[in-house]
Amino acid sequence: MAPDLRIDLDRLMGRLRALGEIGALPGGGVKRLALSDADKAGRDLVCGWMRDLGLDLTTDCIGNVWGVRRGREDTAPVVIGSHIDTVATGGLYDGNLGVLAGLEIVETLNDAGIETRRPVAVGFFTNEEGARFAPDMMGSGVAQGALDLDDTLATVGIDGQRVGDELRRIGYAGDAPPLALKPDSFLELHVEQGPVLEREGIAIGAVTGVQGISWTEFTVTGVSNHAGTTPMAMRHDAGVVAARIALEARAIADAFGPPQVATVGAFRLEPDLVNVVPQKAVLTVDLRNTDNVRLIEAETRLRSTARKAAAEEGCTVELRSLARFDPVEFDEGLVAAIETAAAELGHGVRRMPSGAGHDAQMFAPNCPTAMVFVPSQDGLSHNINEYTAPEEIRAGVDVLFRVALARAGADILAEQDQ
Amino acid sequence: MAPDLRIDLDRLMGRLRALGEIGALPGGGVKRLALSDADKAGRDLVCGWMRDLGLDLTTDCIGNVWGVRRGREDTAPVVIGSHIDTVATGGLYDGNLGVLAGLEIVETLNDAGIETRRPVAVGFFTNEEGARFAPDMMGSGVAQGALDLDDTLATVGIDGQRVGDELRRIGYAGDAPPLALKPDSFLELHVEQGPVLEREGIAIGAVTGVQGISWTEFTVTGVSNHAGTTPMAMRHDAGVVAARIALEARAIADAFGPPQVATVGAFRLEPDLVNVVPQKAVLTVDLRNTDNVRLIEAETRLRSTARKAAAEEGCTVELRSLARFDPVEFDEGLVAAIETAAAELGHGVRRMPSGAGHDAQMFAPNCPTAMVFVPSQDGLSHNINEYTAPEEIRAGVDVLFRVALARAGADILAEQDQ
Repeated sequence: MAPDLRIDLDRLMGRLRALGEIGALPGGGVKRLALSDADKAGRDLVCGWMRDLGLDLTTDCIGNVWGVRRGREDTAPVVIGSHIDTVATGGLYDGNLGVLAGLEIVETLNDAGIETRRPVAVGFFTNEEGARFAPDMMGSGVAQGALDLDDTLATVGIDGQRVGDELRRIGYAGDAPPLALKPDSFLELHVEQGPVLEREGIAIGAVTGVQGISWTEFTVTGVSNHAGTTPMAMRHDAGVVAARIALEARAIADAFGPPQVATVGAFRLEPDLVNVVPQKAVLTVDLRNTDNVRLIEAETRLRSTARKAAAEEGCTVELRSLARFDPVEFDEGLVAAIETAAAELGHGVRRMPSGAGHDAQMFAPNCPTAMVFVPSQDGLSHNINEYTAPEEIRAGVDVLFRVALARAGADILAEQDQ
Repeated sequence: MAPDLRIDLDRLMGRLRALGEIGALPGGGVKRLALSDADKAGRDLVCGWMRDLGLDLTTDCIGNVWGVRRGREDTAPVVIGSHIDTVATGGLYDGNLGVLAGLEIVETLNDAGIETRRPVAVGFFTNEEGARFAPDMMGSGVAQGALDLDDTLATVGIDGQRVGDELRRIGYAGDAPPLALKPDSFLELHVEQGPVLEREGIAIGAVTGVQGISWTEFTVTGVSNHAGTTPMAMRHDAGVVAARIALEARAIADAFGPPQVATVGAFRLEPDLVNVVPQKAVLTVDLRNTDNVRLIEAETRLRSTARKAAAEEGCTVELRSLARFDPVEFDEGLVAAIETAAAELGHGVRRMPSGAGHDAQMFAPNCPTAMVFVPSQDGLSHNINEYTAPEEIRAGVDVLFRVALARAGADILAEQDQ
């Protein structure tokens, strides 16, 4: 890349800090729940920057905003984007980095006077976090046709307010309909939110897709009995069945190997007394895999073991699906381009799935899509201590820039790389 | 036994029903918490019966009452006893049966004009259940020197009242000091409170002792992490360690075989969310065995596995003993006498430990002691549906009678059995 295409890290960090001051929490961290006053102030700040950079702004009916930098051809834009809403105790980086990196790339292009063949757009998408309104990835979901607009506008949040009303209240109920944003491609830079890159000392994650998620609640019913007077052979202990299910979840993850993960996060007994054999146990199992066939295998094995364990103990077990999302695969060409760009820039890179959901997965069915991950210190996420070092951010933006520019088609690149 | 020594089952059942009307609950069952107004009314009724039968009554400083039927010799009495307090949702039989069976035996002896060599006493002991004041087996514990009198009198109950004050209020703070009751032997008839006799179709349990009890709380501390972004190899899942401890408790019971029992009654995770790896798990393990050496082996194996499981997961585990009682062994001669009596009377009999605590265990260190169990329908205990059929009660009282009479020494027996 040409020397004058080097991003200005201080400028980017300045914007991250400035945005982080809006909704800043007293003890550190940020709270900008979607469509709140703080979100409006954050949106206003980012829109001002977009206008300052000469972008053509569009706001759609669910409050997504994107600004387009024209290209030599009037074609679909390469879209760089993420979100600027946060959870109640969020940090500076989650979402914000992906939006402000886009602005930094635009400003660098502007400063260098470079015209791309395709337009380049920067977008932020409403309520990615889902912390005030469910579901998460709401704006990108509506924009890309995965969620119904009217249903979404009618959604009531944790404070009793409706999405549609709050959009109007903060002045971000736009005119553009769903699917108005038709990208050539979608690129999202994001903090990993996990420990892998830091632990392995690797700068760049080339994200291959988003794990499929399967949440199942198991309710085991046995018979409550006296812990002293009931011989083992006469027990129907719901807790023992639940413990067997919990360890089977771990055994499945061990047997399948990465990227399969399995988590028993919730586990409750009734009556939950030291000297009473549990009559009832409720536990949840969270299974994730990037391969839907493997995920189904994991679900099948778990359910089979649960039924067997219940039968052996003379208990019954009921299953309830709490959530089920198929895996999303990102574009192989773009993933490879991220790997290549990282390598060319001298950064360590590894392919990895995303364990968390992102706006990018809403775009993936409609256009070539990929994500770049940078390390999260201690894997902390949705935490006021979330942190990624400036030089790690630079590496991620450099890779994003290189891939975006190649996709948008900048003559300068081809000339100078020779 | 002589035909005229046959007990009057209707009379006994009538007393059980009459006592059960005091503190009767609207939907069935009984509530006579220790030292409550209902307990006073129950005590008054039973003391009236005792006086009607010509017994010499003594009330001690903890409110235990016993009535002595004189023998030919002025020696220590054969004591038949149990308790008449109940849990908040108790039945007719628990405790009451052991006391009223004693009265029925006395009345049968009176009616037949039989004089025993040793005195026969019938006693009821304060607050066996521990439902209002802790610990349980309070009256027998003080009477037999296992509990300190002053500490016990100062005990505050669930309603803020003190044992000593309540004893005076209901008029049962007597003069007799601890250890005033020095039995020749102690015999207690009780409902099994478990399912064994009913399931096996056996009328009589010859109770060999009371299981030792070991309650341990395990607190496992790991690291809270995102269920999607944290690879399995980087987890420190407190819940997995807890599940391994829970299944080890079951494995110990399976490996040791009866009478070892193991119960995980309480199990809680933090933060207890479906998509968060648990940071903390707290579970309790209730181990019981009649053999203290085996109980210690079970404790040792469980603790060792807990520490190993925690270490393998990169977690820590802290152990806290919640309760620890050594097993109590009843008198071999009396246990054998119960077996023999049952067989002579044509009843099926089996030796078995008691899984629950009883007043008898407080007497066991001081005099030959044993218990007779009769079946509990469906193993129900501390339940308004607690039930033992009249003919099952008759069988138990007949056995108790035969053993007590042999112990007390009645010439009639020796003569008539020849």
